[in-house]
Amino acid sequence: MIYDNLKVGDNGHLYFAGRDTVRLAETYKTPLYLLDEEKILNRCRLYRSAMKAAFGGDALPLYAGKALCIGALYRVMKEENMGIDVVSAGEIHTAAKAGFPMERAYFHGNNKTDADIAFAMEKEVGHFVCDNEDELLAIDAEAKKRGIRQKVLLRLTPGIDPHTHAKIATGKVDSKFGAAIETGQARALTALALSQKNVELEGFHCHIGSQIFDCQPYLDAADIMLRFIAEVKADFGFSASVLNLGGGMGVPYTDVDSPVDYAANIREIGRHLSATCQALGMEKPTVLMEPGRSIVADAGMTLYTVGGKKEIQGYKNYVSVDGGMADNPRFALYEAKYTVLLANKAAAPAIYRCTVAGRCCESGDLIGEDFLIPEPKRGDLLAVLTTGAYNYSMASNYNALCKPSVVILGEKQEYIAVERESLDDLTRNQVF
Amino acid sequence: MIYDNLKVGDNGHLYFAGRDTVRLAETYKTPLYLLDEEKILNRCRLYRSAMKAAFGGDALPLYAGKALCIGALYRVMKEENMGIDVVSAGEIHTAAKAGFPMERAYFHGNNKTDADIAFAMEKEVGHFVCDNEDELLAIDAEAKKRGIRQKVLLRLTPGIDPHTHAKIATGKVDSKFGAAIETGQARALTALALSQKNVELEGFHCHIGSQIFDCQPYLDAADIMLRFIAEVKADFGFSASVLNLGGGMGVPYTDVDSPVDYAANIREIGRHLSATCQALGMEKPTVLMEPGRSIVADAGMTLYTVGGKKEIQGYKNYVSVDGGMADNPRFALYEAKYTVLLANKAAAPAIYRCTVAGRCCESGDLIGEDFLIPEPKRGDLLAVLTTGAYNYSMASNYNALCKPSVVILGEKQEYIAVERESLDDLTRNQVF
Repeated sequence: MIYDNLKVGDNGHLYFAGRDTVRLAETYKTPLYLLDEEKILNRCRLYRSAMKAAFGGDALPLYAGKALCIGALYRVMKEENMGIDVVSAGEIHTAAKAGFPMERAYFHGNNKTDADIAFAMEKEVGHFVCDNEDELLAIDAEAKKRGIRQKVLLRLTPGIDPHTHAKIATGKVDSKFGAAIETGQARALTALALSQKNVELEGFHCHIGSQIFDCQPYLDAADIMLRFIAEVKADFGFSASVLNLGGGMGVPYTDVDSPVDYAANIREIGRHLSATCQALGMEKPTVLMEPGRSIVADAGMTLYTVGGKKEIQGYKNYVSVDGGMADNPRFALYEAKYTVLLANKAAAPAIYRCTVAGRCCESGDLIGEDFLIPEPKRGDLLAVLTTGAYNYSMASNYNALCKPSVVILGEKQEYIAVERESLDDLTRNQVF
Repeated sequence: MIYDNLKVGDNGHLYFAGRDTVRLAETYKTPLYLLDEEKILNRCRLYRSAMKAAFGGDALPLYAGKALCIGALYRVMKEENMGIDVVSAGEIHTAAKAGFPMERAYFHGNNKTDADIAFAMEKEVGHFVCDNEDELLAIDAEAKKRGIRQKVLLRLTPGIDPHTHAKIATGKVDSKFGAAIETGQARALTALALSQKNVELEGFHCHIGSQIFDCQPYLDAADIMLRFIAEVKADFGFSASVLNLGGGMGVPYTDVDSPVDYAANIREIGRHLSATCQALGMEKPTVLMEPGRSIVADAGMTLYTVGGKKEIQGYKNYVSVDGGMADNPRFALYEAKYTVLLANKAAAPAIYRCTVAGRCCESGDLIGEDFLIPEPKRGDLLAVLTTGAYNYSMASNYNALCKPSVVILGEKQEYIAVERESLDDLTRNQVF
């Protein structure tokens, strides 16, 4: 099995986080999102301890809630002493409602609206990661109105191409995010930030992309960012106390991907950072990182009921399930790869080659192609692994489908973190 | 201007359906979906009258609600004597709640769950468009339980490639939809349907794809379907009374696309169908068609507030807006093209070349690339045209963004059809 929280029971059923998935599907219905709480806790602890060892005691991982933004997770992040990365009033609202201490929140995004800026200050979000000049002026103006000094980092693009999917490569100079170091815009934004009375510049942020399996792009990014910090120290006398290296460490979705040793990567970045700081004759800044996918992706699983199979002679076999691009748009968006298992026949030989199709009226609505599973029939249970990140958070109501519920499987108890949407939820805001 | 419901006012503002868009944005806030009701009414009437003239008095266009499924539209469809194409319990619920007469509803989809089949019969949906054998047996079983005979069409794939985007080409043999004529599966499904006691086979359905700008694929599909009808008449003595030719007629999104003359296309299909029926010595069946996009797409517009611009020397200019892939995922999914206008400076020369980026934390979150607009600044109003179809219906809460409201602009009144989601809506089903 690709993950250590999967096994096949004596009854031939797939077990996930110690539970019989057939029993879970009967209890909670399908489609169903599951989350293995232990996996999430362990990943938070791994990031916390590895970062502390590599970067010093003030290092902090920020959970990037865009991967999965639900109240129950923010409660976990609070208990685990994580920071968080938030990107909208909606994420701030969710975290605040869960009682997360907002001083440890970092407000991201390439376009913070005036209303969002005001809302974030109202909720006392500790830090803004400012993207551009327009936004910096808007943050300064709102802070002035409130008589506060808002702590900010500046988002920079270090000009790194980390060899990932174009849609999720964000650290290149040609990006909607941040100010490019290469073009001089980062320097100009820094000068502007230092001249504003109502913002307190703490340091700099970069995010080079997602699903990065190598360590080298992080070392390159750290180099470029540290050199920039040295440059602004020399030019403006400003000592950045914070360096946020963003997120993006990869998660294996199939056994073609090699698992990333997050702790080893962090150690390596730590060593490199210490050496570079020493070479540049500078203090080591406080280091932040922003794991999202690598905290929750492989803690997640989606269960679907099979609707039937369609065997098209000379072409291929289609197996349909009772969800699809509405609850998981990642194949439609990126042709993302997944691993699937027939959960109620998990011990049977995987001999049936098929495309798994969703139920939306759209040809592109697939879970994936070229899977090998035991031969399925209507009513069987299909498990899609690694759906903890960017599934519930990207879910739509396309085809007027209700969003599935999210059930968290803890060591001692299991509980519903998000109730399944009802038909009345779909029409709640409509005027009839 | 690309559409006849757009003009520039003396104040330099863009007017849509007779309204000043700047006033609409002030009144309803952004992001905001707008719908021109007259455009929708006229398109329904065009389909109704053209189909009646081409195919006979019993022909019926079915509005495909997956393009935009809201109660207010089903009320319009009821008043305009349209039929509807529904694809889930959610769409059935919405239409029924709006008082739509469900006898004129056709229930589609490649994977109807047992629960959906029961729900549809409970709501007395008139017709099921059955996709496959598993589903046929499930429909028969549920009808038996209820002591009814359910009217069904069978969905067939005629093996047409209409030269559109692969993700929305659905009439090819290699498709998750329907039974292929070419492989003999359509014939087998027909035989099975005729042998079931609790279903009443009315005829056949095909849908060749979306965004089709030529008439020829429809003529080809009609040919193939009529020959199949003649074949099953000869083999089984079954006379199909209904032929549903699906939807898919194209809508221009930019001035590169040529507008489709829907009435001329329908006339042409009608002539061809009459000639083919005569040649085959058969009665003309009742013809149904399923326009969705071509009813609502160009009746729609989205208004956004500009967050700012980012000019990356040597690369390109980015203009950010306060929405994006959460309210319009079509660029992220298909690299769909749009036309955009700077609504508060609509008379200014369009000299600023830019990429318009959404506010989601994802590089692929763009509205589109290589637009020419007047030079924008934070606070300006950007209009994206042709967003009536597959925008609200595909919207997500990615990045915990609230879905915008939908405002319908009628000849006499304007009204909110869908209220903007609140922050509390986002967390309504979450357990804290």
